[in-house]
Amino acid sequence: MRMYEIINNKKRGKTLTNDEINFVVQGFTTGEVPDYQMSALLMAIYFQGMSPEETAALTMAMANSGEQIDLSNLHGKNVDKHSTGGVGDKTTLIVAPIVAALGLNIPKMSGRGLGHTGGTIDKIESIPGVRTSLESEEFLKIVNHHKICITGQSANLAPADKAIYALRDVTATVDSIPLIAASIMSKKIAAGAKYILLDVKTGSGAFMKDVEDATKLAQEMVNIGGACGRETAAIITDMSAPLGWAVGNSLEVIEAIEVLSDKASDKPLAEVCITLAAHLLHLAAEGDFAECRQKVEDAIKSGIALQKFAEMIEAQGGDPSYILNPENFPKAAHIIPCPAPETGYITKMDTEGIGLAAVTLGAGRSIPTDTIDHSAGIVLHAKTGNYVEKGQPLATLHTNNPEAAKEAKAKLIASYKISSNKPRPTPLIHAQISLATKG
Amino acid sequence: MRMYEIINNKKRGKTLTNDEINFVVQGFTTGEVPDYQMSALLMAIYFQGMSPEETAALTMAMANSGEQIDLSNLHGKNVDKHSTGGVGDKTTLIVAPIVAALGLNIPKMSGRGLGHTGGTIDKIESIPGVRTSLESEEFLKIVNHHKICITGQSANLAPADKAIYALRDVTATVDSIPLIAASIMSKKIAAGAKYILLDVKTGSGAFMKDVEDATKLAQEMVNIGGACGRETAAIITDMSAPLGWAVGNSLEVIEAIEVLSDKASDKPLAEVCITLAAHLLHLAAEGDFAECRQKVEDAIKSGIALQKFAEMIEAQGGDPSYILNPENFPKAAHIIPCPAPETGYITKMDTEGIGLAAVTLGAGRSIPTDTIDHSAGIVLHAKTGNYVEKGQPLATLHTNNPEAAKEAKAKLIASYKISSNKPRPTPLIHAQISLATKG
Repeated sequence: MRMYEIINNKKRGKTLTNDEINFVVQGFTTGEVPDYQMSALLMAIYFQGMSPEETAALTMAMANSGEQIDLSNLHGKNVDKHSTGGVGDKTTLIVAPIVAALGLNIPKMSGRGLGHTGGTIDKIESIPGVRTSLESEEFLKIVNHHKICITGQSANLAPADKAIYALRDVTATVDSIPLIAASIMSKKIAAGAKYILLDVKTGSGAFMKDVEDATKLAQEMVNIGGACGRETAAIITDMSAPLGWAVGNSLEVIEAIEVLSDKASDKPLAEVCITLAAHLLHLAAEGDFAECRQKVEDAIKSGIALQKFAEMIEAQGGDPSYILNPENFPKAAHIIPCPAPETGYITKMDTEGIGLAAVTLGAGRSIPTDTIDHSAGIVLHAKTGNYVEKGQPLATLHTNNPEAAKEAKAKLIASYKISSNKPRPTPLIHAQISLATKG
Repeated sequence: MRMYEIINNKKRGKTLTNDEINFVVQGFTTGEVPDYQMSALLMAIYFQGMSPEETAALTMAMANSGEQIDLSNLHGKNVDKHSTGGVGDKTTLIVAPIVAALGLNIPKMSGRGLGHTGGTIDKIESIPGVRTSLESEEFLKIVNHHKICITGQSANLAPADKAIYALRDVTATVDSIPLIAASIMSKKIAAGAKYILLDVKTGSGAFMKDVEDATKLAQEMVNIGGACGRETAAIITDMSAPLGWAVGNSLEVIEAIEVLSDKASDKPLAEVCITLAAHLLHLAAEGDFAECRQKVEDAIKSGIALQKFAEMIEAQGGDPSYILNPENFPKAAHIIPCPAPETGYITKMDTEGIGLAAVTLGAGRSIPTDTIDHSAGIVLHAKTGNYVEKGQPLATLHTNNPEAAKEAKAKLIASYKISSNKPRPTPLIHAQISLATKG
């Protein structure tokens, strides 16, 4: 009864060996370890944690459970980025074209939205014609030609992680930092990039509500990357308000195009994207940080980043004219203003609540099988720190489902806290995490 | 997803409500709550514990999951005793006839042995003819006529406990004091007695290796009994050495007859039995403790307790002549002395090891389906505190399987620690636990 001993050892706070962790992951994947033993082990891990070595071993075992993307035939440096998810987070649509325009390969596998968080795949699918279920061969061919491709995650990427996550989801064992870290990193390791930048979100719209937990998660992931031979760094960025003004799929693509066109109407969004892209270049040894930042700014100003985005969309079967003429995106039938209920400073936003209001309008999914209305969403006109007069629009709701607008409006208004005191500004970038040994 | 919330609440250290606990127990019994969620909850309980109210609610829910023995038609006071299990623990065979002879009803449902611990049902089955699988009707009829009956536990007594225990057994969640307490008490509550005395063993042959844990378990069970409207008390007794000289089924019956015949060759065994019987009488308001103890001693001296034991055996279909002439019990074919490997004081005994040596000889079970050799076992000649000369017999092995004797002998000898320093004596009775509110 080896699994019994493994559960018992973890329960008593002992460190599991590599062999034990491989036994668990392989056994669970093949069905030899029953789910009731796995869930008991997961709960014991929730309470006892895992050492960096155990977390790295779990990551590797899950990465090894399925397909490993082989990037060795690509010319140049292969980079990847991952965001832990938030509201209005369209950074991949901006950062990936920038770094590709600057010569890095970015073979990007992304996910779909669920609950309050959006997903990059849903966002690019709002561009007519784009294909996002590419086989590895076509995916790598596009990266080889264009340095960039964004596809949905291969079904056979870290299948053990998928099975374990499904069990965690119904046994209240999701919120364990080592398990979250191993889950994310198993997919990044299997996806093959040498340079991995993690964007760990913190605040009311993030899974990690406080900076301390976000930092722990970031450090765990960076350590795993190091243990798996990848150059890995993490940035802790703010998600106490939505990122940018737009929440919803085509609305966010339009805003991303705005940033790539050097016409960002939201400075924080542009700043986060520039910082992420610069860190990715710096991680890939493309110069010191200041040089990298300058390159990024130039790539936006010169238009090569926007051009790269249009090029990728065309390579994936999409119509690039939308990128150059974003006013052509279909608009929702109902565009409804949402006025401020009182006068004062916006002191706080329940960003998760705003994400859920967008879901109500059709922009997201409550359950994985829900369908998405790509034109639905919210355009914000005021965020934390802004002063609003009663009746002035806080936001505009976009929807094809007018019945849902009332509920979404109530959710949205309830997500704003307005008071007479001007709040202190929240930092945009909370911290940068690199491998301890790199200093 | 209500079960999810219950797991999550317990994980976060919240107290579960009665309704939540009933939902869990009923849901798990009907199969609506899957085992993987139940095992996650059990592991969360292992770490977060349960309040006395939660433990009582769990006990009641499990007791209510099956048959409840209705003792209301019996005349007189209904008492029960429970031992948490040990090696050489034949106290039920002695205590039950004593209290029945003194006028209390003791409708006793007992278990079988597994691993190092023996079981009362196995022990009385060594008496030819005894039936131990009685239907409730016959069981109650015998108690009604004779005040005593010892039968195997009804299959439908607390079935939820049985199912939950089976899951705990394979998910390393057995060793949780509230879960152990609720498991034991659910069967005691369903068995119906008003007065319940718990004999919680502590030491190297017990599940609770130290007095502190044994005391916690005892207090939990006494609290549960009180919360369920039963008069409950507990005694913490020593199991750092086997109780009495005999380990093995018919060997233990013979030793029990010796005590009931006022010919106890082991004073600690007689003392523990007299104390337990006196506490049971005292709990049932049969006088102050000194009076109760005197009655117990008189019941042995006068022979009425031994007579009651023979009467019960006959009522259950057994041959009472064995009780009056224990030399008639069949003997094992091989009786092998086990000499002391060195001279000195016995300072310590690995009592669990001695129990396992007896299992090797055929006296017990490694797995529930093993068959038992009723004549097999060990008769000890020296225990902790005794001085032995090298070569002098430590014990005699009884077996019908001479091949097993070598292994058993090695296990037995390895269980004794002999040194030149005389050890300090261990108390026989460590503590007495009653409901806090009773003082």
